[in-house]
Amino acid sequence: MASSKPSIPKGTRDFGPEQMVRRNFIFDTIREVFSRYGYQPIETPAMENLSTLLGKYGEEGDKLLFKILNSGDFIDKADSSVFKLGNSNAASLAICEKGLRYDLTVPFARFVVQYQNDIQFPFKRYQIQPVWRADRPQKGRYREFYQCDVDVIGSNSLLNEYELVLIINEVFERLKIHTVLKLNNRKILSGIAEVIGESDKLIDITVAIDKIDKIGIEAVNSELRERGVAEQAVQKLQPIISMTGTNAEKLIVIKDVLKSSEIGMKGVAELEELFGYIESVGGLSTKVEFDLSLARGLNYYTGAIFEVKAVDVQIGSICGGGRYDDLAGIFGLKNLSGVGVSFGADRIYDVMLQQELFPESLAASTKVMFVNFGEKEAVYCLKALNRLRAAGMSAELYPDSSKMKKQLDYCNKRNIHFAVIAGENEINANQLAVKNMVTGQQELISYDNLTEFIQHNI
Amino acid sequence: MASSKPSIPKGTRDFGPEQMVRRNFIFDTIREVFSRYGYQPIETPAMENLSTLLGKYGEEGDKLLFKILNSGDFIDKADSSVFKLGNSNAASLAICEKGLRYDLTVPFARFVVQYQNDIQFPFKRYQIQPVWRADRPQKGRYREFYQCDVDVIGSNSLLNEYELVLIINEVFERLKIHTVLKLNNRKILSGIAEVIGESDKLIDITVAIDKIDKIGIEAVNSELRERGVAEQAVQKLQPIISMTGTNAEKLIVIKDVLKSSEIGMKGVAELEELFGYIESVGGLSTKVEFDLSLARGLNYYTGAIFEVKAVDVQIGSICGGGRYDDLAGIFGLKNLSGVGVSFGADRIYDVMLQQELFPESLAASTKVMFVNFGEKEAVYCLKALNRLRAAGMSAELYPDSSKMKKQLDYCNKRNIHFAVIAGENEINANQLAVKNMVTGQQELISYDNLTEFIQHNI
Repeated sequence: MASSKPSIPKGTRDFGPEQMVRRNFIFDTIREVFSRYGYQPIETPAMENLSTLLGKYGEEGDKLLFKILNSGDFIDKADSSVFKLGNSNAASLAICEKGLRYDLTVPFARFVVQYQNDIQFPFKRYQIQPVWRADRPQKGRYREFYQCDVDVIGSNSLLNEYELVLIINEVFERLKIHTVLKLNNRKILSGIAEVIGESDKLIDITVAIDKIDKIGIEAVNSELRERGVAEQAVQKLQPIISMTGTNAEKLIVIKDVLKSSEIGMKGVAELEELFGYIESVGGLSTKVEFDLSLARGLNYYTGAIFEVKAVDVQIGSICGGGRYDDLAGIFGLKNLSGVGVSFGADRIYDVMLQQELFPESLAASTKVMFVNFGEKEAVYCLKALNRLRAAGMSAELYPDSSKMKKQLDYCNKRNIHFAVIAGENEINANQLAVKNMVTGQQELISYDNLTEFIQHNI
Repeated sequence: MASSKPSIPKGTRDFGPEQMVRRNFIFDTIREVFSRYGYQPIETPAMENLSTLLGKYGEEGDKLLFKILNSGDFIDKADSSVFKLGNSNAASLAICEKGLRYDLTVPFARFVVQYQNDIQFPFKRYQIQPVWRADRPQKGRYREFYQCDVDVIGSNSLLNEYELVLIINEVFERLKIHTVLKLNNRKILSGIAEVIGESDKLIDITVAIDKIDKIGIEAVNSELRERGVAEQAVQKLQPIISMTGTNAEKLIVIKDVLKSSEIGMKGVAELEELFGYIESVGGLSTKVEFDLSLARGLNYYTGAIFEVKAVDVQIGSICGGGRYDDLAGIFGLKNLSGVGVSFGADRIYDVMLQQELFPESLAASTKVMFVNFGEKEAVYCLKALNRLRAAGMSAELYPDSSKMKKQLDYCNKRNIHFAVIAGENEINANQLAVKNMVTGQQELISYDNLTEFIQHNI
């Protein structure tokens, strides 16, 4: 076993104790809210059959799948003619049957189809697990990262969309992140493309509209023309591109434009129902905004589209999702409509770090450290130590009878609040000396009073 | 996208809500105890460089690593001469740079070496993550499974071993599993092999001794002879093989046999110190047993060896570990001694299921379901629903206004305790009807009293 300088694959990360405690704070908060709303946890394997994954994320997505080499003599089992220059893609399929999951949505669809007879529909599930993508690593983009997905499948009701709005609101309220929730509806976008006679330019249109705040209306119109949108269609788009005001005011404009489009009006009705719940029940701290330029995952969603941005932070969306009418159809189970959102734990972490939103109490786990002067003194301390733990406090005994300075250094660097010191004198008097590492103050207390003393002074 | 009958790779598992809640109960308990003892969480990536993993688990282990195919045109980058029949192993190294982690110990060693300048030693860490092994799947053996590891590195003190005994005791006490903790010491085994002049037959000797309860002393002696242990050595082993009684009585026998072996006597002293802590502090509910036949991971451990068995259940060990004097040496960092144990979540799950040890309260997450009669009634219910959630209860509104029977069926199958029903009459009287799904009893209550009513009657 030669010694080697250790490192990890690019685009992956180790998480040390400080990061872990913060990440767990985010995951625990999200999990607690999901559960409060009646969603149930599932987990799926890291490896899925490639037949499950391939063709679900487009050609680009297929290339980003991490494939797992078949075990054993994979060459003997493959047709040797596949190992030719320029033939890597075909060869990979001959020597790999499994891949790492790319997201949590396709495994969820697979799960629903596989266990359809055991599941109670509507099925409300959440799933918090890592996913892997062979993307080029860059700032904020990793090859392994966690997704936190919450979906309900088997119900068309817009109350599900409303529930997701409540969940988004509560998660970010608890994390103290100021957010704007942007809402759109795929049917409205389809309606617009329909009424201006440019159904095949849906993406070009939304990309151009998305830039209005940055480049202004004239530049948007130029871009639309460059992308091949007919002049007449550009003119028809004007009231939509330049619309402003409240959500209700925007809906009035849209309704007028879309009055001849059945699908467009269905989208408007859906959005109105959702805004109706939001207004009549009230209580949201997140601002909810109708944003026509929101078009994420356009080929995928069929109804509501959600996206959450943090206010005052330069970062992409920290949560997003929508409704998909035929998710499980790719695995042969038709007519199950679902709606869900995914929280991006890594970006949420970055926002909270930047805005200093992590509670200070997360910093230290151990509250009390017993200094170690040797075997006899250690044994004297052990019962008091166990009592603290039994009372629910994290506590430890320094394992070696190292120099006092070294032990207190460790105590300081670990941010441990109290050091307990017991030498000859304390043992004879059945006492313990407790040093507050923050104030530097030291007190002598009776052995049996330690737990109470710590509970009072922490 | 052709439809396909979905399945998962053999040896992997999906976990549905019921299993997840139980698994999380185990993980949360273990995590809580680890943290109470001052251990800190870390996580490492699922993928490690193959250079980190290869050669660390023996030749057999290398074969069980899941390797990840390099992205892009892996064939172009490899020497084409490697793609020959019977050459799969060499070829795999030419086209794979990464593998899935096989355990948590090697990634931990890599972590310690990589971040040695940032870590406070002694470093007390825990890690709960899945590992992957291309083993032949069989009952109770999976290709993806979780390990829960707790280790301290950078301290030689036997107080660390004692702390692990306390942790083992507390975890299984909380899970209500009756266990026996078996203890041994590698130095004692080395000492025995030394004094009988058979240092190279260490494994043969422990394997044979292990069978004494099943086959009796004569059969053990025959087996020792068959394995090539000299007659004189077999005679010298007799007092050890046939020793019985308490731990203290066994130690007296061993001490006599090992008096001429320096390493053997060091092992005895270590075990005596550990038993000393256990006895002088007391309070353990787990039975601790000195077991000379315990030899797990023999080539790996250098001091204490731990193994935990569940009493009254036919299953292998549910926890095990030991001390390793030079773990980080494989990555070039010398003289860091560590000791740790790993809890086997899957076997613990099986034991708890078999002995019905999971708390009943785990069964259901959602406590209250509101029946849905349509949009107007739903809106009436939403505020009461949000109040329940704000009070910390899991509650949901059935999203569709389906037939009452269908909704109550869902409520029953999900084990939801209360159904809240609000139609025309209830709305007009500002009331809610609450049906206890367990007793079948139904009560009319004032709208504002719901939270209090549920809290009192659950």
